[in-house]
Amino acid sequence: MRRVAIALVHYPVLDGQGAVVTTAVTNLDVHDLSRSARTFGCTDYFVTHPIAAQRELCERILAHWTDGSSGRRIPDRREALTVLRVVESLDAAIDALGGRAVVEVWLTAARALGNTLTFAEARSRVEGEGSTILVVFGTGWGLASSVLAGGDALLEPIVAARGDYNHLSVRSACAIVLDRLLGAR
Amino acid sequence: MRRVAIALVHYPVLDGQGAVVTTAVTNLDVHDLSRSARTFGCTDYFVTHPIAAQRELCERILAHWTDGSSGRRIPDRREALTVLRVVESLDAAIDALGGRAVVEVWLTAARALGNTLTFAEARSRVEGEGSTILVVFGTGWGLASSVLAGGDALLEPIVAARGDYNHLSVRSACAIVLDRLLGAR
Repeated sequence: MRRVAIALVHYPVLDGQGAVVTTAVTNLDVHDLSRSARTFGCTDYFVTHPIAAQRELCERILAHWTDGSSGRRIPDRREALTVLRVVESLDAAIDALGGRAVVEVWLTAARALGNTLTFAEARSRVEGEGSTILVVFGTGWGLASSVLAGGDALLEPIVAARGDYNHLSVRSACAIVLDRLLGAR
Repeated sequence: MRRVAIALVHYPVLDGQGAVVTTAVTNLDVHDLSRSARTFGCTDYFVTHPIAAQRELCERILAHWTDGSSGRRIPDRREALTVLRVVESLDAAIDALGGRAVVEVWLTAARALGNTLTFAEARSRVEGEGSTILVVFGTGWGLASSVLAGGDALLEPIVAARGDYNHLSVRSACAIVLDRLLGAR
């Protein structure tokens, strides 16, 4: 089985009008994606943010739940947050995993944007042997095209059996993706 | 295919020490579970809370996103929140669906607590014909035993292919359960 890590990108992502923006850190994104990553056996959860004050906020949340009072109150949460890494950019996350040559970058989007990797195929790749896989999620209205152009694969969108509405939170989408790739079957 | 609804219970649930408590409403639970419910074709998402002021808070969030400025800013979110119903108790949710005789109540827990319904079997039941299914999630450390005793089935816990740590948020757990029951395969 291959090593899997995840990254949450706050820049460059799209806003509701399709403009490239930087989003603010959402506290529960820090928690929920850590908990999902740790539960499904991911080794790292990279929160990527270009603004130092936002990275410091993440580090303070992390410290509060590892060394602080909340970590003592909820040890399971402290354990979840051990996978959290706060970095400046997606490139920095890739570097932390050993560099672009040894990391397979899988991107996610809520809509089908060209050729996509099916979850069945993705799961069989995860279960095989090979280099580290980094699954990348966007905040806001999703990853900007400059990020989408730089990956090794684009995962198929999450689709429901009935209906064509899709407006999942990134917390929900990440949980579903990790379950489809790494959940017991 | 059967009608599926979900409920989020704030009382009676457990705290970290196993005591029965009432939890406070979390804003993102209102949003994320609405978005997951609407995406996967659930007809209703019942937020159940025994305290009137907490129910009013939910109604204010709902109004802000349906009639208020945020509803105009993000029409997809307004659409998600159309499934939200704020009620006093799980019984009130069941009554709103037609009463206990015509609702199948499926409970969820993070640990295996006796006989459980597998997701494979649950999915095939959803795809068949029959009465409305209400899938029930607990906040805090999960549903109290008095709730667990009153259901028709207990869904198997979400388990990862590797590792035995499980500390998902209710937002993540609900998303995964709905995907396993109602996601396209």
